[in-house]
Amino acid sequence: MSEPEVGGLTIEDSQSSLASSTREKDPKEVEAKKAAKAAEKAAKEAAKAERAAQRGVKAAIMTQPEADDPLKDAYGDYPMVQSQGQTGRKWTHVEDLSPALVDQKVLVRGRIHTTRGKGKSAFLVIRQRTATVQAILFADDTTVSKGMVKYATQISKESIVDVEGVVKVPANPIEGCSQKDVELQVTGIRAVSRAAALPFELVDAARSEEEVKAAAERGEIMPTVGQDLRLDNRFLDLRTPANQAIFKLQSAVCQLFKSTLLAEGFQEIHTPKLIAGASEGGAAVFRLDYMGTPACLAQSPQLYKQMAICADCDRVFEVGPVFRAEQSYTHRHLCEFMGLDLEMAIHEHYFEVLDVIEKLFEAIFNGLATTYAKELAVVATQYPFDIPTFKPLRLTFPEGIAMLREGGYPDVDPLGDLNTELERALGRMVKEKYGTDFFILHRYPSAVRPFYTMPCSDDPTYSNSYDVFIRGEEIISGAQRVHDADLLTERAKACGVPVETIQSYIDSFKLGAPPHGGAGVGLERVVMLYCALGNIRKTSMFPRDPKRLTP
Amino acid sequence: MSEPEVGGLTIEDSQSSLASSTREKDPKEVEAKKAAKAAEKAAKEAAKAERAAQRGVKAAIMTQPEADDPLKDAYGDYPMVQSQGQTGRKWTHVEDLSPALVDQKVLVRGRIHTTRGKGKSAFLVIRQRTATVQAILFADDTTVSKGMVKYATQISKESIVDVEGVVKVPANPIEGCSQKDVELQVTGIRAVSRAAALPFELVDAARSEEEVKAAAERGEIMPTVGQDLRLDNRFLDLRTPANQAIFKLQSAVCQLFKSTLLAEGFQEIHTPKLIAGASEGGAAVFRLDYMGTPACLAQSPQLYKQMAICADCDRVFEVGPVFRAEQSYTHRHLCEFMGLDLEMAIHEHYFEVLDVIEKLFEAIFNGLATTYAKELAVVATQYPFDIPTFKPLRLTFPEGIAMLREGGYPDVDPLGDLNTELERALGRMVKEKYGTDFFILHRYPSAVRPFYTMPCSDDPTYSNSYDVFIRGEEIISGAQRVHDADLLTERAKACGVPVETIQSYIDSFKLGAPPHGGAGVGLERVVMLYCALGNIRKTSMFPRDPKRLTP
Repeated sequence: MSEPEVGGLTIEDSQSSLASSTREKDPKEVEAKKAAKAAEKAAKEAAKAERAAQRGVKAAIMTQPEADDPLKDAYGDYPMVQSQGQTGRKWTHVEDLSPALVDQKVLVRGRIHTTRGKGKSAFLVIRQRTATVQAILFADDTTVSKGMVKYATQISKESIVDVEGVVKVPANPIEGCSQKDVELQVTGIRAVSRAAALPFELVDAARSEEEVKAAAERGEIMPTVGQDLRLDNRFLDLRTPANQAIFKLQSAVCQLFKSTLLAEGFQEIHTPKLIAGASEGGAAVFRLDYMGTPACLAQSPQLYKQMAICADCDRVFEVGPVFRAEQSYTHRHLCEFMGLDLEMAIHEHYFEVLDVIEKLFEAIFNGLATTYAKELAVVATQYPFDIPTFKPLRLTFPEGIAMLREGGYPDVDPLGDLNTELERALGRMVKEKYGTDFFILHRYPSAVRPFYTMPCSDDPTYSNSYDVFIRGEEIISGAQRVHDADLLTERAKACGVPVETIQSYIDSFKLGAPPHGGAGVGLERVVMLYCALGNIRKTSMFPRDPKRLTP
Repeated sequence: MSEPEVGGLTIEDSQSSLASSTREKDPKEVEAKKAAKAAEKAAKEAAKAERAAQRGVKAAIMTQPEADDPLKDAYGDYPMVQSQGQTGRKWTHVEDLSPALVDQKVLVRGRIHTTRGKGKSAFLVIRQRTATVQAILFADDTTVSKGMVKYATQISKESIVDVEGVVKVPANPIEGCSQKDVELQVTGIRAVSRAAALPFELVDAARSEEEVKAAAERGEIMPTVGQDLRLDNRFLDLRTPANQAIFKLQSAVCQLFKSTLLAEGFQEIHTPKLIAGASEGGAAVFRLDYMGTPACLAQSPQLYKQMAICADCDRVFEVGPVFRAEQSYTHRHLCEFMGLDLEMAIHEHYFEVLDVIEKLFEAIFNGLATTYAKELAVVATQYPFDIPTFKPLRLTFPEGIAMLREGGYPDVDPLGDLNTELERALGRMVKEKYGTDFFILHRYPSAVRPFYTMPCSDDPTYSNSYDVFIRGEEIISGAQRVHDADLLTERAKACGVPVETIQSYIDSFKLGAPPHGGAGVGLERVVMLYCALGNIRKTSMFPRDPKRLTP
């Protein structure tokens, strides 16, 4: 498909911020603002220097070697990488450096994380994603000149550089780098892309609350970066090791979801997000004009995944955006999030769906804990958490109510929904009694579920429905659906849904409908709850909430 | 995440059709309409019978055995499947039946595809997805009663049934079933979900053009089903074997795309589809109100995947919906389609991206041809095509122009874009000369590419860009992007893009930007062109074009 012209107002506005006065107050915002102001000042100075340089005035910053430096071929800014040619050189990933490579010459491409110049020597930390390594220059006039040291120390933080050097094993482990047992003795350094002044320092953005507290106890103030400042500059914020790891984990959850379901005979489908809808219909829906027809954005693929089942697709999943125009400004709601949806024909019982859901989360929990242990450790460095435990556990809703009543909530409504407080309390009790952070609560009261939920055959007060919890927070909602047109009509009427508005939905079950059930998972919630991150904005790359539409 | 209430107008309208008068004329529509009318009549009659049955009048259709039938436990409609219990029974997939199971009793769940009753016997064809098997009943009063034969023959087509039977190997292969070497001797049959009257017959929807033509030559008229009637009843249309196979192939292309890129070190990302945008900006954009702020739907993840690269994600892909409010009503344009996007940092040259693209399509072509040979054969039964050939081939744009000039297009503009005719002509010439249905054309003239495309270092008239073709139709567009803020500003000005509207896009390259390139693929186009299906509506489950927003 042809690529769109990136022009007009689209990009501009997708980056511009909403007025900050409309934002929630963040406790760290105040400190962050100070940091931002300092950064702004620095940016202005840098811009001034840049303008001076452009006017032909000698720039403060050295970008090319002096002509008379005998080592001038070893450093200096590259020309812009423009596919001039292929040299056959190999770059080693910082992560892959190890004592096994001692005394070998390697080439790495990374960012200047920190710089420390001291007379004839310079100590750089080069960062590539979550990995950092120390790179040392010492002017000896053989492999490193004074000009080279000067050049290296003047490269701004976050600039991308190619560093050529010899792998050395230092006498003492290097603290503060992920590579503690190796360092690079630099023989060449070239800037690939220079960074202008930063709105905040990456080391500040990567700092843990614990570190800040410990410093405060010593009487030191360590700057942190507020959430809005981070999100306003998300492409910078995402460079912190914890964020690099979080989005690798997010990608991993997606792959574990897909691979487990594919192995269970599911097929991936894609259903439309643009659906017809009149302006007066439904709450929490984004509305738009579709070529003159009123339309809205899908709040879930519910109808379409059910149609796929009626179309004999048997077992389907979809990974796609879900849109909710809700004025919820909580730690766990977004206006656009990734839905991991599944729907499947069943032969007899919704337990067939629960079997799949348990396999799915066993695979996700085990897959993350084993294959992604490194990323989990990186996240925990900034945001400490315990790896959650997984044991398959199914409790009925009445069993859950009984636990709550015995556990200090004697007045809980046996046929009402559970609020956040009750869910968390139940999560704690389950953890204590059964030793698992994961469990399924099923047979919810019919009254608190959508009209298309299949009632229990033995007692229609309850329904063939379920929620799944991680750390006492709901992560999945699902049910066996009503696949019988007559019962669906009856249920709609009983729930006060005007039948005429859903007639074609009802009709789609009239040409032979397989009994079926399914569930919907929020991807951001899985990562948030697994890592106990406490705010869903941390697990959405570019979050959308009622107050944020940019970047 | 909690499931939305399916109510209000959302579902109703997502199924209701646009006024048919706004539709394009389809040559087959007329016949289809006749069929639809007949179906409507039948539906009315069935509904009448149903109502009569509900009033307690003896229904025309038998749903339960006579009380005095000694074999009454072997047939009759199930109660609605409502998770009453789990029996431990195993169902065999129709596809898995084989002579190895001869004389064994099996249970299958499928649809009544066709029925033929003849005195004391009945011949049913049971369909499960792309597989069909013959099921025979012969009233012998030992295992099959007359009542059972009557019951079986009266089950309407497309109803879902459980059939219990003994696997037999027939004397002669069974024509017209995918299972030719086995059949079922029915010992029990029960309807799971009955189908009302159909808007069209599935056998008509599954018929190939060749079959219709051959019949016409014999003087017979075989009904076919027009595209709009199909799409209006998509959940029925999708049950044809060809459609079942098409969407398994679509799922397969997705998995091959992902697995190849994951193996190449990519990570999956999800970027927002809701982006800020003022009402006056950009063409072909769907606009909406976002909590009081003007917003639009992303036309591509271009900006965001580039930000992910600036955020050090290194190699990213996204599979997500792309929205284009274009009034294009061609065989290859949709207003909502699935974009398979990739973006990656490069060290030196855009050939690093082309290496990935070639690996990707080699994996897709080989993966489909080997692992999905069965599905390809099923598609070809209704829509005959040759498996396309894959050889890696890169031609420069000037080389392509030279081929076209020599090949009968002497006046082609050496610095203009290629129109559909020229692309197809070049595709034919390449196929003839190099024997491949796949090739890459690179170094497009800068003038025909977006402003953010990196110009060639040796000649800025050309750019580091590429299109990828299958069967002479463009399937991918991509390029090395400009990662330098100054050059980006310059290019924007040269292309007449107001710099102030894209300032924050430009700014995102100022904090150290890796050289990078990428590409965007249309999922529906890959499947359409691979299978030579001729219309993109065949490869979109629920297509969206300027005239269709439902179902």
